[in-house]
Amino acid sequence: MTIRNDLDPDILRVGHLLADAARVETLAHFRASDLSADNKLSQGYDPVTIADRAAERAMVGILARERPDDAVLGEEYGAVAGTSGLTWVLDPIDGTRGFVSGTPTWGVLIAVGDRDGPFFGIIDQPYIRERFIGGPGLATVTGPSGTHALKTRPARDLSDATVFTTFPEVGSIAEGAAFQQVAQRAQLTRYGMDCYAYALVAAGQIDLVIESCLNAYDIQAPIAVIQAAGGIVTDWQGGPAHQGGRAVAAANADIHAQALDILRGCPA
Amino acid sequence: MTIRNDLDPDILRVGHLLADAARVETLAHFRASDLSADNKLSQGYDPVTIADRAAERAMVGILARERPDDAVLGEEYGAVAGTSGLTWVLDPIDGTRGFVSGTPTWGVLIAVGDRDGPFFGIIDQPYIRERFIGGPGLATVTGPSGTHALKTRPARDLSDATVFTTFPEVGSIAEGAAFQQVAQRAQLTRYGMDCYAYALVAAGQIDLVIESCLNAYDIQAPIAVIQAAGGIVTDWQGGPAHQGGRAVAAANADIHAQALDILRGCPA
Repeated sequence: MTIRNDLDPDILRVGHLLADAARVETLAHFRASDLSADNKLSQGYDPVTIADRAAERAMVGILARERPDDAVLGEEYGAVAGTSGLTWVLDPIDGTRGFVSGTPTWGVLIAVGDRDGPFFGIIDQPYIRERFIGGPGLATVTGPSGTHALKTRPARDLSDATVFTTFPEVGSIAEGAAFQQVAQRAQLTRYGMDCYAYALVAAGQIDLVIESCLNAYDIQAPIAVIQAAGGIVTDWQGGPAHQGGRAVAAANADIHAQALDILRGCPA
Repeated sequence: MTIRNDLDPDILRVGHLLADAARVETLAHFRASDLSADNKLSQGYDPVTIADRAAERAMVGILARERPDDAVLGEEYGAVAGTSGLTWVLDPIDGTRGFVSGTPTWGVLIAVGDRDGPFFGIIDQPYIRERFIGGPGLATVTGPSGTHALKTRPARDLSDATVFTTFPEVGSIAEGAAFQQVAQRAQLTRYGMDCYAYALVAAGQIDLVIESCLNAYDIQAPIAVIQAAGGIVTDWQGGPAHQGGRAVAAANADIHAQALDILRGCPA
């Protein structure tokens, strides 16, 4: 595993360029009355907006110009090969159902990783103008209240903890039951935050986010931001989560262990 | 019933003063790491923050100076009598559980009403710097994207509608079951938005918000803002909702009727 003590400043520079471009493209359509949302999946409700595609096109264009040797994995248009060993992982609108409902909970997710997983991430909320960034030696949020360091919460008992997930169902019946076991032992359970919940872990506001059925591009930026802020993100067995599937994002090792004690029992 | 065609500009002026003051007081404590949340109720989880009390004190002080003849009903400190026939109804932080979780979904609620109910309301989200205002001849939102008119969605079938509530449980078992009957027929159900969900009805982003166990100060500002934007807020029988209890906030008369067809059957 590559140990990175400092972030390559060019990655930070290009990360901001991508997030700035995606902010413009998404805000051009957020809360617009003529928003069209076609169905990506034949079953279920997974709207893909014009904004989603426009934002990814803008980001891929910037990467082609600024980082031509890096690979790209995007939600909408798939993969671009590279030679540098680095991959940019893009989700132009994480939380499309939040987006079409007007909630400021969706986000633009940008991650950079190598074969060991992501080491740099951005969670950007365009409407609030709020950007959470994490990488080696870097963990900050810049938003309407200025710039602040990101630092996850210290350990506390699960009975004093706050747990988030986006939908109460949380995937399969077994996964939903495992989530509810954690939720019933927690002090407070909240829903509906899309990727913004991961940002709240990094910002020291909540203790746990538990989700399943994730894609790689849904979780890589949260992993990098939360790890940089002092937290831990794994799958429900404690292994790497950066390929997607089930994830538990925890403020610290202690609350992570308490959650895994329950989640580990969920059948695969 | 008093018909009001135009809003008294002094009410609008003082409404802004209150919301500005509450914004300062709440933001001084939002996402602060030393936030203390004592328990108002011996059972359940209803944190009351320093911010909540400071914001109400600030607003009550402004009203004593600027509108000494009006009555005040506040969440924290109760009632102040008046002689004008007008009452200011204040909820300094609606969504305290959202507040202590760091989500930008709580809000400052300010309403002005007479014996027929509220005719002016403000839903302010301090962190986003976003203010939804509704009254006679006035329905606007001012936020990070500038100022826009508020206008609720046109009619659509419930099967194409988006429904919000804050917690999946929605009060009693019977109330939760009635809510789920509506949710199961809707296209999309989302949770966790606190009072921000009402603002999304007014902004034309969603179709329905359904809640129970409300206090008067939770619902009066949403009623005024949503009505000014073209929507309807009633209890689950179609009667007035401004005393609290069960409420259904609808974008239009058609979706309101579809929701009431189901909710009306819920035992009292």
